[in-house]
Amino acid sequence: MTEDVHAERRERATARLRETGAAGLVCFPSRNLQYLTGFAEEPGERHLLLVVPADDPPADGATATEPTLLVPALYETQVREETTVGAVRTWADGDDPTAAVRDLLGDLGLREGRLLVDDTMWATFAQDLRDAAPDAEWGLASEALADLRVRKDEAELDAMRAAAAAADETVRDLRDLGADAVGMTERDLADRIADRLAVHGGEGTAFETIVGAGPNGAKPHHGSGDREIRAGEPVVLDFGTRVDGYPSDQTRTLVFDGEPPAEYERVHEAVREAQAAAVEAVEPGVPAEAVDRAAREVIEAAGYGDAFVHRTGHGVGLDVHEEPYVVAGNDRALEPGMVVSVEPGIYLDGRFGCRIEDLVVVTENGCERLNDTDRGWR
Amino acid sequence: MTEDVHAERRERATARLRETGAAGLVCFPSRNLQYLTGFAEEPGERHLLLVVPADDPPADGATATEPTLLVPALYETQVREETTVGAVRTWADGDDPTAAVRDLLGDLGLREGRLLVDDTMWATFAQDLRDAAPDAEWGLASEALADLRVRKDEAELDAMRAAAAAADETVRDLRDLGADAVGMTERDLADRIADRLAVHGGEGTAFETIVGAGPNGAKPHHGSGDREIRAGEPVVLDFGTRVDGYPSDQTRTLVFDGEPPAEYERVHEAVREAQAAAVEAVEPGVPAEAVDRAAREVIEAAGYGDAFVHRTGHGVGLDVHEEPYVVAGNDRALEPGMVVSVEPGIYLDGRFGCRIEDLVVVTENGCERLNDTDRGWR
Repeated sequence: MTEDVHAERRERATARLRETGAAGLVCFPSRNLQYLTGFAEEPGERHLLLVVPADDPPADGATATEPTLLVPALYETQVREETTVGAVRTWADGDDPTAAVRDLLGDLGLREGRLLVDDTMWATFAQDLRDAAPDAEWGLASEALADLRVRKDEAELDAMRAAAAAADETVRDLRDLGADAVGMTERDLADRIADRLAVHGGEGTAFETIVGAGPNGAKPHHGSGDREIRAGEPVVLDFGTRVDGYPSDQTRTLVFDGEPPAEYERVHEAVREAQAAAVEAVEPGVPAEAVDRAAREVIEAAGYGDAFVHRTGHGVGLDVHEEPYVVAGNDRALEPGMVVSVEPGIYLDGRFGCRIEDLVVVTENGCERLNDTDRGWR
Repeated sequence: MTEDVHAERRERATARLRETGAAGLVCFPSRNLQYLTGFAEEPGERHLLLVVPADDPPADGATATEPTLLVPALYETQVREETTVGAVRTWADGDDPTAAVRDLLGDLGLREGRLLVDDTMWATFAQDLRDAAPDAEWGLASEALADLRVRKDEAELDAMRAAAAAADETVRDLRDLGADAVGMTERDLADRIADRLAVHGGEGTAFETIVGAGPNGAKPHHGSGDREIRAGEPVVLDFGTRVDGYPSDQTRTLVFDGEPPAEYERVHEAVREAQAAAVEAVEPGVPAEAVDRAAREVIEAAGYGDAFVHRTGHGVGLDVHEEPYVVAGNDRALEPGMVVSVEPGIYLDGRFGCRIEDLVVVTENGCERLNDTDRGWR
C-alpha cells in the first residue's frame, strides 16, 4: 500500500465524522490508528493518541486544524518515518501527558461537542480525555469508521487472499502428518502450525492458535495444552496468520489416524453441510442474520441445535473480529467488499467438537471463498 | 499456584475496595481478572466480566453478594473448570448482553456509588457499564488493586526467576552465534530468540521482540525488520518470555563480530555504569525517582544526557509494564517484593543505540537481580 492510502483514509474519516455529527475522533494504538496512519503498535501505558478534528475550517477558537499525533518522545523518529501525519507533538517520560492532551484538544477546538474514541481504547486514557474535555459528549469510533473499514479495497483483499493461502498450505501440511501427529501434544501442533505459517509467507499468528483434541475440542475457546493427540480423536484446528497486516482465520477438524466415533462422522457431515448452506446464502443485500439462520437450520435438522453454541461468524479485517457479525438479530445487509467468516460448529461436552470455517468476500453477485483446502476430517 | 490463591486474592480485593471507598469492581479479560481468578484470556468483542461487590452484608436492595462472572455461553465449561468463582452467569450469541450487565449490577446493588473498572477496559464495555449504572461514579481498578499486585509473593517470584533464567540462557545462545549472526536479518534473530526461549522452558514471548541493528537500535521501540546484521554493528536485543503467566524482561546490546565504532565502546561503558548505579540504588524506602536519578546522573556526566530519552524502568508483574514506574516525579517508596526493570539507554539518531536491562526484586535490605548473564557487548 502506498503512503497516500492513509492520507486518503484520514480525509474520508473526516467526512464521516461530519456526516455522523461528531466534532472529532481520538485513536490510541488500535486497528483504527493502523487503518488511518499505517502505524501498527500494541497499546501500552504511555499516552499515544491521534486526534482528528471534523471541521474544516476549524471550530471557533481553534488554532490548529490538522489530524495530530501526540506521542511519547521515544516514538518520534519512528512515527515520522512510518506515517504521513504532518502534525506530531511529543511528551517525554517525566512530563505530565494529561496536560499535553488538554492542550491538544483545546488547540483543535475539541473541548466540547461529540467526540468519538476507539472502541478498544483503555479506560485509563478514555478517563483522561473525559477529564480534559468535561463538557464533551462521548461516543465510539465505530459509529464513524466501521462503515469505511467494513468494505475492503483490492489491496486489502489481496493481502487477505495471501494470508488465506498460507493457512490453506498449512492445513495441507497438517493433514500430511497423518499418524505422525499421534503422541504429539496440542502445544507441539500449535508450534508446528506457527512454523508452517511462516514458511508459507505468513507473518506470525493472528490470534492464539486453537488445537482442541477430543474433549478439549468441545470447548470452543480452548487454546492448546499438554494433551497428547490420540488415534481416532477429532482435533479442532483454528488458526490464522497475517500478510501486510491483514489476517486469515480458518478452521478444520481432522482425525489424524484411526477411525473416529461413529457419531462423529454424522456430526462432521452436518457441520460441513451447514457451512456450505451458509456460504451459499452469502450475497449482497442478504441480512447477516440470514446467513446464521442458513447454517443453524441444517444443524437443527440434524438434531444438534443445542450444541451449536455460538454465532455463525464475524467480519474480518485489520481486526480479526469486526463488523458485520453473522448472528441472529443482525439485520444489516451484506455489501460487496465485506469479508466474513462462516464457521458453524457442534460441541458435545466431554466428548469432542467439530468446527469448519472459511473466510468469504461478498462480491457483486455472490461470494468468493478465500479458503479452498479440503473440508473433510481424513 | 493452588486454586485457593485466587479466592484469597478476591477477599483481599474486597477489603481494598472498602478501604478505598469503592462500592464495586468490574474486570474484563485483563491481568486483574487473571490475578483474581486465574482465568487468562485476551480481550474480545464479547462481554466477559467479573463483578466484585465491596459490601458484605450486601448493599440495600441487593439480592446477590458474591463475586460473579458474566460470560459468553461458549466459555462456560472453561470458566467453571479453570476458576473457583462460584457464581457464573451466561449469555448466548444473539442475546443482548447489555441487559445481562444491567441485571447483574442491579442484583449486586451496584447501580450507584463509586465503581472501579480495569485500567485497560475497552471503551465499548466501559460505555455499556455507564449506561447500565448512569448514577454511578467511575474510577480505575488500579486505585484498589495496584497495592495488592505490586508486592509479589514467593510463588510469583519463583515464576519470574524461572522466566529470567530462560532469557539469560537465550542471551548466552545469541552470544555464541558470534560471526554466524552476520547476514541474518533482525527478523531471523527474533525467530531464533523465540525458539531458544521455548527450549529453555519459556512460554511464548512476553512482548514483541526487539532486534535493533545499527541505526534501528536508535529507535527504542523498533521491533524487528529485514535489515541484515553487519559486522561491527551494535544490536539491541530486548525480549521476554513467561513462566506460569509471569514475564521476564531483559535487554543486552551485542556486537556479534568485528569492532564497533570507537564511540560505541564509550557509550556502552556509560550505560553499563548507569545501570549498575541504578541497581545499587534499589532498596526499601528509596523513592522510585531516585533510581532513575542514579542512572541519569552517570549518563549526563558522560555527556549523553539528551540521548537517554526514556525513563529508567517500570514495575513488572502479570503486566510487563505496571507500577511502580522508575521515572522522574514518582516519589513512591520502594517496598520489599516489588519487581522493577532497570534499563538505561543511549540512542544516537541514525547511528546506533545501546540499552542494558535487568529485572530486580526489592528485598528487605537491598535487591536481588533476576538476570545475571554478562552485560558486555562482545
